Amino acid sequence: MKSLLITGISGFVGGHFTRFIVDKKSDCVIHGLSRSKPAWDFIEDRNHVLDAITFHQCDLLDSKKINEIIGKIQPDYILHLASFSSVSQSWSEPMASFLNNTNAFLNIAESVRIQSLNTKILSVGSSEEYGIVKESDLPLTEKKHVAPANPYAVARVSEEHLAQIYAKGYHLNICCTRSFNHIGPGQSDQFVVSSIAKQFAEIAIHHKKPVIQIGAGSIIRDFIDIEDVIRAYDAILEKGVTGEVYNVCGGRGHSILNIVSALSELTHTPVIVEQNQLLLRPIDNPILIGSYDKLQNTAGWKPDCPIEKSLEKIHTYWVNKLS
Amino acid sequence: MKSLLITGISGFVGGHFTRFIVDKKSDCVIHGLSRSKPAWDFIEDRNHVLDAITFHQCDLLDSKKINEIIGKIQPDYILHLASFSSVSQSWSEPMASFLNNTNAFLNIAESVRIQSLNTKILSVGSSEEYGIVKESDLPLTEKKHVAPANPYAVARVSEEHLAQIYAKGYHLNICCTRSFNHIGPGQSDQFVVSSIAKQFAEIAIHHKKPVIQIGAGSIIRDFIDIEDVIRAYDAILEKGVTGEVYNVCGGRGHSILNIVSALSELTHTPVIVEQNQLLLRPIDNPILIGSYDKLQNTAGWKPDCPIEKSLEKIHTYWVNKLS
Repeated sequence: MKSLLITGISGFVGGHFTRFIVDKKSDCVIHGLSRSKPAWDFIEDRNHVLDAITFHQCDLLDSKKINEIIGKIQPDYILHLASFSSVSQSWSEPMASFLNNTNAFLNIAESVRIQSLNTKILSVGSSEEYGIVKESDLPLTEKKHVAPANPYAVARVSEEHLAQIYAKGYHLNICCTRSFNHIGPGQSDQFVVSSIAKQFAEIAIHHKKPVIQIGAGSIIRDFIDIEDVIRAYDAILEKGVTGEVYNVCGGRGHSILNIVSALSELTHTPVIVEQNQLLLRPIDNPILIGSYDKLQNTAGWKPDCPIEKSLEKIHTYWVNKLS
Repeated sequence: MKSLLITGISGFVGGHFTRFIVDKKSDCVIHGLSRSKPAWDFIEDRNHVLDAITFHQCDLLDSKKINEIIGKIQPDYILHLASFSSVSQSWSEPMASFLNNTNAFLNIAESVRIQSLNTKILSVGSSEEYGIVKESDLPLTEKKHVAPANPYAVARVSEEHLAQIYAKGYHLNICCTRSFNHIGPGQSDQFVVSSIAKQFAEIAIHHKKPVIQIGAGSIIRDFIDIEDVIRAYDAILEKGVTGEVYNVCGGRGHSILNIVSALSELTHTPVIVEQNQLLLRPIDNPILIGSYDKLQNTAGWKPDCPIEKSLEKIHTYWVNKLS
């Protein structure tokens, strides 16, 4: 039996990843760690999945408790998902964003180092680490130098640099990702695609005016379905090379206005788009598109889910939730 | 009258900088902040300098107190020197190194941001941010991408990235340095040149065996005299451009063995060099030499003190201290 510890298990990615492991890997003991118990309204067979895990309620900033839990479990794998992952929120709370991301990672890495455990750790980073890039740099490969342009991105770069030190200086078995924008059912409406899909659901169910509020409509992101992300994290935990960083992305760009159009078409709902000044950011990346060649070459992974299918799942999630 | 707040005032750089301001700028009100009161055994006219400052005893991690102090002073300038600046210690205490560097900076920057103060901040970084570099990259300019290779360097890069966000995203008036290895009287013997000079003083005074313990002898560093560093920080506070990063360096490289030879010659003491395994680091930069063109072009600054003169001052300091 192998043991796996998932931090931030109660979140969007945590829920989907746990369901994946419960479904696919009967030889794996799953421990989950989070500030709050999983609610997971987006997991169909939620009770079955909840029964399969041992849950530890803990603040990731509580280094003493983290150390006790990790010492007790001695996990073969740690998937470190716990984070403060909203870019817009990081502008209003830069300090909380930085501390919650970097210090949480440090507590985990230090615990594994001090206890000399033989644990494979996956540290999840972000495409935001690349910062403002030129069109000629696209698609972004992992060789591109990072240049963080918001507080969240700074925290992610710091975490990646720390992970490299723990891998190369202290010989911990750590891999890193630069994960591009995930989308899927269960994601908070703080994130753009979830917010837009929720607004379409509100129009349909509550007969709201057909107006969609967005921030910058022209920015382009490489959106990737949560199921593809989950398979990528599993592949890196199994086959990722120590100290290496992997893009987790779909390899294609979609503007925010594209997303609105696609949902308008999917739901047969003509809408008016309004720019909400409050959703604009002090600095924003015009375009981010990644290359997944490295992860494909290392682990045979590639994305599988087309954006239209993702949008349909997300819209259905919101319709069910709001009905 | 202008007001200046110096964090980490009780340290080596803090003492020298304070003496410089007291000597040169009678129109400046000086506030100092540190965990412990200044001892400054390396400042000749110490009592005169101490009388010229208002000292605030405070832990830089105490955000509430920092905020109160900064709100009260409303400084025109902040020179942020407080740091956990030993590379070797950062390998044994990676977490303390990271937290003390990044969180201390965040407390200061957040305080200035939240209170909307019009303060010029100098955030002091390190040449260690460059990491392992190729000979063809020398001398290092500020355009070279950073690649931190020890926990201290990671903290410094994180601080620099945070400073950029505060400058570009929140429009704070912050400049950064990448300061190369300072040397001068009063520096802790945790630092290599001070340690070697102290050993020479011990040989002379306590008739110890003529054996000098060092770590890696062949590594090359760009050592710069503390008086030159002080003038550079003053020049950046006066003339540095918001959001810019400046190398503070001497522009010349010296190996550790060169330093031993120069001190051997200066003191007419033949010595045997012994490598102490405990002084070696998990990863070490073979060579770091900087270019000071950018700071010279911006502020007319250039280094002035030859290494032999620096070594003489440091040796004299240790001889006086140990006698």
